[in-house]
Amino acid sequence: MAIHYLEDFVAGERFGGAMRVRIEAERIKSFAAEFDPQPFHLDEQAARGSLFAGLAASGWHTAAVTIRLIVGSDLSPAGGVIGASFDEFRWPRPVRPGDELRVEMEILEVRASKSRPEQGMVKARTTTLNQRDEVVQLSVVNLVVARRPA
Amino acid sequence: MAIHYLEDFVAGERFGGAMRVRIEAERIKSFAAEFDPQPFHLDEQAARGSLFAGLAASGWHTAAVTIRLIVGSDLSPAGGVIGASFDEFRWPRPVRPGDELRVEMEILEVRASKSRPEQGMVKARTTTLNQRDEVVQLSVVNLVVARRPA
Repeated sequence: MAIHYLEDFVAGERFGGAMRVRIEAERIKSFAAEFDPQPFHLDEQAARGSLFAGLAASGWHTAAVTIRLIVGSDLSPAGGVIGASFDEFRWPRPVRPGDELRVEMEILEVRASKSRPEQGMVKARTTTLNQRDEVVQLSVVNLVVARRPA
Repeated sequence: MAIHYLEDFVAGERFGGAMRVRIEAERIKSFAAEFDPQPFHLDEQAARGSLFAGLAASGWHTAAVTIRLIVGSDLSPAGGVIGASFDEFRWPRPVRPGDELRVEMEILEVRASKSRPEQGMVKARTTTLNQRDEVVQLSVVNLVVARRPA
Protein backbone atom coordinates (compact mmCIF):
# COMPACT_ATOMS: atom_id res chain seq x y z
CA MET A 1 0.00 0.00 0.00
CA ALA A 2 1.38 3.44 -0.98
CA ILE A 3 2.63 5.67 1.86
CA HIS A 4 1.23 9.22 1.73
CA TYR A 5 3.42 12.17 2.66
CA LEU A 6 1.82 15.51 3.54
CA GLU A 7 2.24 16.67 -0.07
CA ASP A 8 0.29 13.65 -1.35
CA PHE A 9 -2.96 14.53 0.47
CA VAL A 10 -5.55 16.70 -1.28
CA ALA A 11 -8.71 18.19 0.26
CA GLY A 12 -11.76 16.29 -0.93
CA GLU A 13 -9.92 12.98 -1.34
CA ARG A 14 -11.59 9.93 0.24
CA PHE A 15 -10.09 6.90 1.94
CA GLY A 16 -11.46 3.69 3.40
CA GLY A 17 -10.95 0.00 2.97
CA ALA A 18 -12.50 -3.45 2.90
CA MET A 19 -11.85 -4.13 6.57
CA ARG A 20 -14.86 -4.87 8.83
CA VAL A 21 -14.77 -5.51 12.57
CA ARG A 22 -17.65 -7.41 14.14
CA ILE A 23 -18.43 -6.39 17.72
CA GLU A 24 -19.29 -9.41 19.85
CA ALA A 25 -21.34 -9.19 23.08
CA GLU A 26 -18.54 -10.88 25.05
CA ARG A 27 -15.94 -8.29 23.95
CA ILE A 28 -18.38 -5.43 24.70
CA LYS A 29 -18.60 -6.76 28.26
CA SER A 30 -14.90 -7.53 28.77
CA PHE A 31 -13.82 -4.14 27.37
CA ALA A 32 -16.32 -2.48 29.71
CA ALA A 33 -15.20 -4.56 32.70
CA GLU A 34 -11.66 -3.21 32.25
CA PHE A 35 -12.35 0.35 31.13
CA ASP A 36 -15.99 1.44 31.39
CA PRO A 37 -17.74 -0.70 34.02
CA GLN A 38 -21.28 0.65 33.79
CA PRO A 39 -24.40 -1.60 33.81
CA PHE A 40 -25.49 -0.73 30.22
CA HIS A 41 -22.11 -1.98 28.87
CA LEU A 42 -21.87 -5.07 31.13
CA ASP A 43 -25.20 -6.83 31.35
CA GLU A 44 -28.18 -7.27 28.97
CA GLN A 45 -30.73 -7.30 31.77
CA ALA A 46 -29.44 -4.12 33.47
CA ALA A 47 -29.03 -2.40 30.08
CA ARG A 48 -32.74 -2.79 29.29
CA GLY A 49 -33.74 -0.19 31.88
CA SER A 50 -31.03 2.31 30.86
CA LEU A 51 -30.99 5.18 28.37
CA PHE A 52 -29.57 2.67 25.82
CA ALA A 53 -32.56 0.27 26.23
CA GLY A 54 -30.27 -2.73 25.64
CA LEU A 55 -26.59 -3.73 25.76
CA ALA A 56 -24.40 -1.11 24.04
CA ALA A 57 -20.65 -0.96 23.47
CA SER A 58 -18.72 1.70 25.37
CA GLY A 59 -18.08 4.66 23.08
CA TRP A 60 -14.39 4.09 23.82
CA HIS A 61 -14.67 0.56 22.50
CA THR A 62 -16.16 2.02 19.30
CA ALA A 63 -13.33 4.56 19.20
CA ALA A 64 -10.70 1.83 19.69
CA VAL A 65 -12.19 -0.29 16.88
CA THR A 66 -12.28 2.83 14.69
CA ILE A 67 -8.51 3.39 15.00
CA ARG A 68 -8.05 -0.30 14.11
CA LEU A 69 -10.07 0.30 10.94
CA ILE A 70 -8.11 3.47 10.12
CA VAL A 71 -4.74 1.74 10.61
CA GLY A 72 -6.01 -1.02 8.30
CA SER A 73 -7.26 1.44 5.66
CA ASP A 74 -5.57 2.92 2.59
CA LEU A 75 -5.00 6.29 4.36
CA SER A 76 -1.39 5.23 5.17
CA PRO A 77 0.14 8.56 6.28
CA ALA A 78 3.95 8.72 6.40
CA GLY A 79 5.11 8.25 9.98
CA GLY A 80 1.86 6.50 10.97
CA VAL A 81 -1.63 7.57 12.00
CA ILE A 82 -0.94 10.17 14.70
CA GLY A 83 -3.95 12.18 15.87
CA ALA A 84 -3.08 15.32 17.84
CA SER A 85 -6.54 16.74 18.45
CA PHE A 86 -10.17 16.71 17.33
CA ASP A 87 -12.37 19.56 16.14
CA GLU A 88 -15.42 17.34 16.50
CA PHE A 89 -16.10 13.99 18.12
CA ARG A 90 -19.47 12.34 18.73
CA TRP A 91 -21.40 9.10 18.89
CA PRO A 92 -24.75 9.62 17.12
CA ARG A 93 -25.99 6.11 18.00
CA PRO A 94 -24.83 3.12 20.05
CA VAL A 95 -23.01 0.02 18.76
CA ARG A 96 -24.92 -3.19 19.48
CA PRO A 97 -23.74 -6.82 19.78
CA GLY A 98 -23.22 -8.30 16.31
CA ASP A 99 -22.72 -4.92 14.60
CA GLU A 100 -20.08 -4.89 11.87
CA LEU A 101 -18.17 -1.64 11.68
CA ARG A 102 -16.28 -0.02 8.81
CA VAL A 103 -14.70 3.39 8.33
CA GLU A 104 -14.78 6.17 5.72
CA MET A 105 -12.48 9.19 5.67
CA GLU A 106 -12.44 12.45 3.77
CA ILE A 107 -9.56 14.93 3.71
CA LEU A 108 -10.79 18.42 4.66
CA GLU A 109 -7.58 20.45 4.82
CA VAL A 110 -3.81 20.08 4.37
CA ARG A 111 -1.29 22.54 5.75
CA ALA A 112 2.45 22.67 6.38
CA SER A 113 3.72 23.51 9.86
CA LYS A 114 5.39 26.91 10.26
CA SER A 115 7.41 25.88 13.31
CA ARG A 116 8.30 22.31 12.23
CA PRO A 117 9.36 22.21 8.57
CA GLU A 118 9.55 18.38 8.49
CA GLN A 119 5.82 17.92 9.14
CA GLY A 120 2.33 19.31 8.71
CA MET A 121 -1.31 18.79 9.63
CA VAL A 122 -4.01 16.93 7.74
CA LYS A 123 -7.58 17.55 8.90
CA ALA A 124 -9.86 14.60 8.10
CA ARG A 125 -13.46 13.66 8.73
CA THR A 126 -13.70 10.08 9.98
CA THR A 127 -17.06 8.30 9.90
CA THR A 128 -17.62 4.90 11.49
CA LEU A 129 -20.65 3.05 10.10
CA ASN A 130 -22.48 -0.14 10.99
CA GLN A 131 -23.79 -2.82 8.59
CA ARG A 132 -26.94 -0.73 7.97
CA ASP A 133 -24.78 2.29 6.96
CA GLU A 134 -25.83 4.12 10.12
CA VAL A 135 -23.21 6.44 11.61
CA VAL A 136 -22.03 5.28 15.04
CA GLN A 137 -19.07 7.67 15.41
CA LEU A 138 -18.17 10.90 13.68
CA SER A 139 -14.98 12.87 14.21
CA VAL A 140 -12.86 15.57 12.63
CA VAL A 141 -9.24 14.81 13.51
CA ASN A 142 -6.03 16.77 13.06
CA LEU A 143 -3.33 14.32 12.03
CA VAL A 144 0.41 14.98 12.22
CA VAL A 145 1.90 13.87 8.87
CA ALA A 146 5.56 13.89 7.75
CA ARG A 147 6.57 15.91 4.68
CA ARG A 148 8.38 14.20 1.84
CA PRO A 149 12.12 14.21 2.59
CA ALA A 150 14.02 16.64 0.35
CA MET B 1 -21.29 7.89 46.95
CA ALA B 2 -24.04 10.44 46.27
CA ILE B 3 -25.76 10.28 42.88
CA HIS B 4 -25.97 13.65 41.12
CA TYR B 5 -29.05 14.57 39.14
CA LEU B 6 -28.90 17.39 36.60
CA GLU B 7 -30.16 19.87 39.22
CA ASP B 8 -27.29 18.96 41.56
CA PHE B 9 -24.50 20.10 39.19
CA VAL B 10 -23.25 23.69 39.37
CA ALA B 11 -20.83 25.41 36.96
CA GLY B 12 -17.42 25.76 38.57
CA GLU B 13 -17.77 22.65 40.73
CA ARG B 14 -14.84 20.21 40.64
CA PHE B 15 -14.76 16.43 40.81
CA GLY B 16 -12.01 13.81 40.93
CA GLY B 17 -11.01 10.96 43.14
CA ALA B 18 -8.21 8.97 44.69
CA MET B 19 -8.10 6.40 41.90
CA ARG B 20 -4.83 5.95 39.98
CA VAL B 21 -4.22 3.62 37.04
CA ARG B 22 -0.65 2.57 36.28
CA ILE B 23 0.03 1.94 32.59
CA GLU B 24 2.28 -1.07 32.10
CA ALA B 25 4.41 -1.61 28.97
CA GLU B 26 2.81 -5.02 28.37
CA ARG B 27 -0.73 -3.57 28.38
CA ILE B 28 0.38 -0.72 26.07
CA LYS B 29 1.53 -3.39 23.61
CA SER B 30 -1.45 -5.74 23.96
CA PHE B 31 -3.98 -2.88 23.65
CA ALA B 32 -2.13 -1.71 20.54
CA ALA B 33 -1.96 -5.22 19.07
CA GLU B 34 -5.78 -5.42 19.21
CA PHE B 35 -6.75 -1.84 18.37
CA ASP B 36 -3.86 0.37 17.21
CA PRO B 37 -1.11 -1.84 15.76
CA GLN B 38 1.51 0.77 14.91
CA PRO B 39 5.25 0.32 15.64
CA PHE B 40 5.48 3.17 18.21
CA HIS B 41 2.80 1.45 20.35
CA LEU B 42 4.10 -2.11 19.91
CA ASP B 43 7.87 -2.22 20.19
CA GLU B 44 10.45 -0.17 22.14
CA GLN B 45 13.10 -0.49 19.43
CA ALA B 46 10.82 0.60 16.58
CA ALA B 47 9.36 3.40 18.73
CA ARG B 48 12.78 5.02 19.19
CA GLY B 49 12.91 6.16 15.58
CA SER B 50 9.32 7.48 15.57
CA LEU B 51 7.82 10.89 16.35
CA PHE B 52 7.29 9.61 19.93
CA ALA B 53 11.03 8.77 20.39
CA GLY B 54 10.11 5.80 22.60
CA LEU B 55 7.22 3.46 23.40
CA ALA B 56 3.98 5.42 23.88
CA ALA B 57 0.46 4.27 24.72
CA SER B 58 -2.18 4.60 22.01
CA GLY B 59 -4.22 7.74 22.64
CA TRP B 60 -7.25 5.43 22.68
CA HIS B 61 -5.68 3.46 25.50
CA THR B 62 -5.29 6.75 27.41
CA ALA B 63 -8.92 7.59 26.58
CA ALA B 64 -10.12 4.17 27.78
CA VAL B 65 -8.21 4.50 31.07
CA THR B 66 -9.67 8.00 31.45
CA ILE B 67 -13.27 6.75 31.32
CA ARG B 68 -12.27 4.13 33.95
CA LEU B 69 -11.06 6.96 36.18
CA ILE B 70 -14.24 9.00 35.58
CA VAL B 71 -16.50 6.04 36.36
CA GLY B 72 -14.47 5.55 39.57
CA SER B 73 -14.66 9.25 40.52
CA ASP B 74 -17.14 11.18 42.67
CA LEU B 75 -18.83 12.69 39.55
CA SER B 76 -21.58 10.00 39.76
CA PRO B 77 -24.21 11.42 37.38
CA ALA B 78 -27.70 9.91 37.63
CA GLY B 79 -28.16 7.34 34.87
CA GLY B 80 -24.41 6.82 34.48
CA VAL B 81 -21.55 8.60 32.69
CA ILE B 82 -22.94 9.02 29.16
CA GLY B 83 -20.93 11.25 26.85
CA ALA B 84 -22.77 12.35 23.72
CA SER B 85 -20.17 14.58 22.11
CA PHE B 86 -17.00 16.59 22.70
CA ASP B 87 -16.31 20.28 22.10
CA GLU B 88 -12.59 19.64 22.52
CA PHE B 89 -10.40 16.55 22.66
CA ARG B 90 -6.62 16.35 22.54
CA TRP B 91 -3.53 14.55 23.76
CA PRO B 92 -0.90 17.20 24.65
CA ARG B 93 1.75 14.57 25.48
CA PRO B 94 2.16 10.80 25.25
CA VAL B 95 1.65 8.28 28.07
CA ARG B 96 4.78 6.22 28.79
CA PRO B 97 5.25 2.80 30.41
CA GLY B 98 4.99 3.14 34.20
CA ASP B 99 2.95 6.36 34.11
CA GLU B 100 0.25 6.62 36.76
CA LEU B 101 -2.85 8.44 35.57
CA ARG B 102 -5.55 10.31 37.47
CA VAL B 103 -8.41 12.53 36.43
CA GLU B 104 -9.79 15.97 37.35
CA MET B 105 -13.12 17.38 36.19
CA GLU B 106 -14.72 20.79 36.25
CA ILE B 107 -18.35 21.54 35.44
CA LEU B 108 -18.56 24.29 32.79
CA GLU B 109 -22.29 24.47 32.03
CA VAL B 110 -25.58 22.85 33.03
CA ARG B 111 -28.72 23.04 30.92
CA ALA B 112 -32.08 21.32 30.74
CA SER B 113 -33.19 19.77 27.46
CA LYS B 114 -36.08 21.52 25.69
CA SER B 115 -37.13 18.43 23.74
CA ARG B 116 -36.59 15.83 26.49
CA PRO B 117 -37.91 17.06 29.85
CA GLU B 118 -36.51 14.06 31.75
CA GLN B 119 -32.88 14.92 31.01
CA GLY B 120 -30.33 17.65 30.35
CA MET B 121 -26.73 18.30 29.36
CA VAL B 122 -23.73 18.88 31.61
CA LYS B 123 -20.63 20.26 29.89
CA ALA B 124 -17.44 19.32 31.77
CA ARG B 125 -13.72 19.75 31.26
CA THR B 126 -11.89 16.48 31.88
CA THR B 127 -8.14 16.53 32.44
CA THR B 128 -6.05 13.36 32.63
CA LEU B 129 -2.71 13.85 34.39
CA ASN B 130 0.37 11.70 34.94
CA GLN B 131 2.37 11.31 38.18
CA ARG B 132 4.29 14.54 37.36
CA ASP B 133 1.00 16.48 37.03
CA GLU B 134 1.55 16.80 33.27
CA VAL B 135 -1.61 16.80 31.15
CA VAL B 136 -1.82 13.75 28.87
CA GLN B 137 -5.44 14.20 27.73
CA LEU B 138 -7.79 17.16 27.77
CA SER B 139 -11.41 17.10 26.73
CA VAL B 140 -14.61 19.08 27.02
CA VAL B 141 -17.48 16.59 27.04
CA ASN B 142 -21.25 17.01 26.83
CA LEU B 143 -22.80 14.49 29.23
CA VAL B 144 -26.44 13.38 29.16
CA VAL B 145 -27.71 13.54 32.77
CA ALA B 146 -31.14 12.59 34.15
CA ARG B 147 -33.25 15.21 35.93
CA ARG B 148 -34.49 14.50 39.43
CA PRO B 149 -37.78 12.63 39.19
CA ALA B 150 -40.74 14.82 40.19
